Amino acid sequence: MKMIVCVDLGGTNLRVALGSSEGRILSRLMERIDKSSGSRGIIHQILRMIHSLEKNPERIASINVATAGPLNLKDGSIVNSPHFKFKHIPIVKPLEDTLGVPVYFANDCVAGAIGEKEFGAGRRYSNIVYVTLSSGIGAGVFVDNHLLIGKDGNAHEVGHMTIDHSGRLTCGCGGKGHWEAYCGGDAAANFIKLQLESKSRRDVEASQLYRISGGNLNLLSSRDLFESAKKGDRLALEIVRSMGRLNAIGFANIVNAYDPELITVGGAIAVSNPTLVLGPVKRLIRQYSINRVPRIVLTRLGEDPVLYGSLRLPYYLDR
Amino acid sequence: MKMIVCVDLGGTNLRVALGSSEGRILSRLMERIDKSSGSRGIIHQILRMIHSLEKNPERIASINVATAGPLNLKDGSIVNSPHFKFKHIPIVKPLEDTLGVPVYFANDCVAGAIGEKEFGAGRRYSNIVYVTLSSGIGAGVFVDNHLLIGKDGNAHEVGHMTIDHSGRLTCGCGGKGHWEAYCGGDAAANFIKLQLESKSRRDVEASQLYRISGGNLNLLSSRDLFESAKKGDRLALEIVRSMGRLNAIGFANIVNAYDPELITVGGAIAVSNPTLVLGPVKRLIRQYSINRVPRIVLTRLGEDPVLYGSLRLPYYLDR
Repeated sequence: MKMIVCVDLGGTNLRVALGSSEGRILSRLMERIDKSSGSRGIIHQILRMIHSLEKNPERIASINVATAGPLNLKDGSIVNSPHFKFKHIPIVKPLEDTLGVPVYFANDCVAGAIGEKEFGAGRRYSNIVYVTLSSGIGAGVFVDNHLLIGKDGNAHEVGHMTIDHSGRLTCGCGGKGHWEAYCGGDAAANFIKLQLESKSRRDVEASQLYRISGGNLNLLSSRDLFESAKKGDRLALEIVRSMGRLNAIGFANIVNAYDPELITVGGAIAVSNPTLVLGPVKRLIRQYSINRVPRIVLTRLGEDPVLYGSLRLPYYLDR
Repeated sequence: MKMIVCVDLGGTNLRVALGSSEGRILSRLMERIDKSSGSRGIIHQILRMIHSLEKNPERIASINVATAGPLNLKDGSIVNSPHFKFKHIPIVKPLEDTLGVPVYFANDCVAGAIGEKEFGAGRRYSNIVYVTLSSGIGAGVFVDNHLLIGKDGNAHEVGHMTIDHSGRLTCGCGGKGHWEAYCGGDAAANFIKLQLESKSRRDVEASQLYRISGGNLNLLSSRDLFESAKKGDRLALEIVRSMGRLNAIGFANIVNAYDPELITVGGAIAVSNPTLVLGPVKRLIRQYSINRVPRIVLTRLGEDPVLYGSLRLPYYLDR
């Protein structure tokens, strides 16, 4: 039997796996994305990782690629991504040309939503949203059992909804006041600095965050923030609380836009800090949502909803 | 041939019309909604207006009701509406019980989207959003030719997306910082007062807005604001400009959520002030949208996209 190659190209990490459409993952690799050699470098990295898992292209049924958006589905490329300096990354054509097998292509969170619906908590539901809180913030959406695609494949760019009309922080994509510019992993240092602006120098310097950063707050990561909060650092806890309110707003916007029965949440930030991240969302979302608040749960699929969903992409997409 | 009764129950006005599913409207009535006698009063008003248009229920094929949301589709009622003090307004059952004909029930902007797709600018498109800027702000959405409904019938409450995380203005629905709380018609006085807070008393008192209001800014309406701006009042123009930026943010959030090819805009505020309202949206939306910006046009159906769409509700809804 031929195997399916799954490619999960996020904002930071690249996973490649071999599996079957019944949801078995047989082997896998993960690397940090090599952003140093332009869009061709990424394709080379994907091809090299596929080659380490399966040397014979004839044993590959299809390559199912799920990537952080936004996409241009028509030409099979990533466009205007906040995570890359190069603004056009062709994916489908170079993979098809090199390996000669069909390539399916979707937003990573769309694949995540498929993963939840086929193998996760979403099996009994017609209206589900999968949200990832990671380097960026994204979603995949089923409304009335229909998987939303949109004109270019981007009917779910929830991380780029503006929640701060004054636009104090600018997003990786250039947009002003986007949710992702406040709560996405890549934005952590910016958000921390913004929150510390109103604090006294003494309070800032006494905080663990300052010590970890060696005095350069630009170096702080989302992980630094949550680890300091877990250790009880007062300022870190305050910043995590502010972030919790903004996440509640982001989730309320999702509820108001798509009216889901279930929201499953994945991505490194949520998976590593479920209580600190999902607690405030569940507590505060009613202040912002006009629609009936749905069940909100951490994914059961760990770091793999996107990989699992990728296995089933051909059942949901026209190519 | 039996006729279709269309009911368009907005936040302020109630329209009832007789028509055919081919898009002919034969007769119509409009009244302000009687909000003085609770939810039964609204039903009585609808029944009275139907009776003036058609005395014999046997000549009615169906009653197609489109109302401002949010809805509870399961029990055929309006719930938690920002426009009414009573928080549960049964619609389907009392109409069916009284007239003995089938009742179809949908969000008014969902009907508007159907109107645009069947009879308006949306005919050639698979991904369209109809937005109303009126007492409130709402939308109806087709993604990939699928009309979004959601678990309770509210997969399009775009006016209740939070665009001001600091929540300075509270929405009619109780939510904080919603787009509608800034740019909806019912919120005009609140928004004007917020914008004037930073102005000197002298500037405020010199403005036409102040004169129109007789010194009580709470009395100002959206119409007062736009009429003053059109007459060149400096403060009114400034406030309209601020509103334009917030509308651009609201429209960008729609583009990022649904990735449409076309947005058609209706509702009294847009229809009466197309340049002042849509100009800034088109100019500023790129600062906030990560997705490719679609065509944005004023509806060609005037005040009637909802009525036209209502005629076709049975083709889109399960009852």
